[in-house]
Amino acid sequence: MFHAVIPAGGSGTRLWPLSRSHHPKFLHDLTGSKRSLLQDTVDRLEPLADATRTYVVTGTAHATSVARQLPDVPDANLLIEPSPRDSCPAVALAAAVIAERDPSGIMGSFHSDHLIPDGRRFVETVRKAVKLAKDGYLMTIGMTPTAPETGFGYLRCGKKLDGGMVLDEFREKPDRETAQSYVDQGYLWNSGLFVWQVSTFLDELARQQPKLHDIVREIAAAWDTPARGEVIGKLWPELPRISVDHAVMEGAAEAGKVAVVPGDFSWNDLGDWDTLADVLESDVDGNVTIGSGEVLSIDTTNTVVVPRGGRLIATVGVSDLVVVDTEDAVLVCPRSRAQDVKKLVDELKARGDRAHT
Amino acid sequence: MFHAVIPAGGSGTRLWPLSRSHHPKFLHDLTGSKRSLLQDTVDRLEPLADATRTYVVTGTAHATSVARQLPDVPDANLLIEPSPRDSCPAVALAAAVIAERDPSGIMGSFHSDHLIPDGRRFVETVRKAVKLAKDGYLMTIGMTPTAPETGFGYLRCGKKLDGGMVLDEFREKPDRETAQSYVDQGYLWNSGLFVWQVSTFLDELARQQPKLHDIVREIAAAWDTPARGEVIGKLWPELPRISVDHAVMEGAAEAGKVAVVPGDFSWNDLGDWDTLADVLESDVDGNVTIGSGEVLSIDTTNTVVVPRGGRLIATVGVSDLVVVDTEDAVLVCPRSRAQDVKKLVDELKARGDRAHT
Repeated sequence: MFHAVIPAGGSGTRLWPLSRSHHPKFLHDLTGSKRSLLQDTVDRLEPLADATRTYVVTGTAHATSVARQLPDVPDANLLIEPSPRDSCPAVALAAAVIAERDPSGIMGSFHSDHLIPDGRRFVETVRKAVKLAKDGYLMTIGMTPTAPETGFGYLRCGKKLDGGMVLDEFREKPDRETAQSYVDQGYLWNSGLFVWQVSTFLDELARQQPKLHDIVREIAAAWDTPARGEVIGKLWPELPRISVDHAVMEGAAEAGKVAVVPGDFSWNDLGDWDTLADVLESDVDGNVTIGSGEVLSIDTTNTVVVPRGGRLIATVGVSDLVVVDTEDAVLVCPRSRAQDVKKLVDELKARGDRAHT
Repeated sequence: MFHAVIPAGGSGTRLWPLSRSHHPKFLHDLTGSKRSLLQDTVDRLEPLADATRTYVVTGTAHATSVARQLPDVPDANLLIEPSPRDSCPAVALAAAVIAERDPSGIMGSFHSDHLIPDGRRFVETVRKAVKLAKDGYLMTIGMTPTAPETGFGYLRCGKKLDGGMVLDEFREKPDRETAQSYVDQGYLWNSGLFVWQVSTFLDELARQQPKLHDIVREIAAAWDTPARGEVIGKLWPELPRISVDHAVMEGAAEAGKVAVVPGDFSWNDLGDWDTLADVLESDVDGNVTIGSGEVLSIDTTNTVVVPRGGRLIATVGVSDLVVVDTEDAVLVCPRSRAQDVKKLVDELKARGDRAHT
């Protein structure tokens, strides 16, 4: 049986002022689908796992919003972290809870806030990974690079398998020159999408992170009992902050236990307003509107307008700009500076401005 | 006795979205003085005319706002036009009402929405005009051109007088080449600021526009009686739409009855966000903030931000831009396109959008 796990964390500060700490990226409809990115993710996984086999791991701040956006997912599948501990404890707790319910189960871990337009192709790729996971590999999906991006980790693959390759080595985010050499050597992007038998993963966790393993198993054992809240409240703070890559995957790769299936579906992490607009439909002048608010544009080209504040947004004579209107804040920046929206949020945080962050 | 008349009309569409039909430019504080442009105008004229000798001619839509902004000006000095009739009926009615109260009075007519930082110099110039008005001239103030502007009418002056010149001819707004030749020949800009004895003006009005003259005299005769509302309501619709320049000044100039005093005070008609920002203080990066709302600017230069919607306005990486936030609309345009804000308003009107115009 396949179980879909969706860690839903991070605030997406580069999509400020829409994305906020209290209402981050994954809770928003950013594509005009009328579904949030989280809901889109669950919908996309539906052919693989129905709602009873869908799990979301999220923080206390977003638990209620997640619950309301996903009414079909059982409460006991919404794993609420008492405090943030990076990705390994989140993924490990999900694996352990699934193992209690379905010891031979297979799980996949999927981003809550990515855009994958071709859902069918995505599902096919995951199915290939499931097949190799049954052979005992910890599977990762490797994307074919379209450019020497410095924002991704890379995967150096080795021996061929039926439908994939053994992973020889994870490589950290490189500089531009190194990225180019990776692309030239046929390395793949590390998508951060994982598939494995929960038993394989938990065994590897026990080998590399025995304390972390024991704690999540103890929490999982109490999960479907009245002691859930008491046990997680007591044990969770003892867990280290560590990513699943550092805690498990890198060591497992060294031991030859990680394999890769190549993914050739298109995929966008919607990192900022510019890259988000790139994947959305534009009008004849290249303008993209994200939202259904009123917009009036004259002599305006290649501009991203996000009318979410209930106001008219009017532009004249502008190009390559981002204009975002929300209830309490307005953002204006060139598309080429979309990454620097993070600087605004950092500055607001430094000022102690909790209202706008 | 000197009386100050302030026709307060026009909506200042190029200062949209702050300036609106229902709340036009002259009712706003655009300079950070905490006084509206209209209030600034009254303050500037105070050395010449106290509140009891200050008159405002305005439309029905703005009468109540004007009354509240100018609590010291008597109700009977607020001349409310039942419908717009251009400048001649407005100025003529004021002249006629003043003539009823002070037959030998002198009046000046002043814009409600201009910025004149050096009030003392302005007052001195008006006093010079008053002196020549006593000799029976219709006086206009001629500004020394600083550039071959095509947005102003020009004044060709002739015979010298004590403190001024006789006006030979009004010249309409020229094209660029003609404007340059006017500047080379020493023509002055027509400021649209007039000073005259009410009796001189009304005589000239009777000569050139006898019907208009008779109607405003009849309304004025009823003004300080209980019949005011009834008489103006009945007679006003019969008045033609005509400017004081066309109706009176051009013909009077032909008859040698107009004279000019040169004004060398600086003067700005605050026509659009760009020219408005030019006269306001900027920070070290050339940025101008008009309003007291919250602004966060990173790597932002020469930009005009108008935070009037109660929201944070954040910019990163922009230059030479105008960003205006109000309750119900946001404007973004380059400073160089500030004139084209009118196009947005025209388009909104064409769409029948009364809420935003």
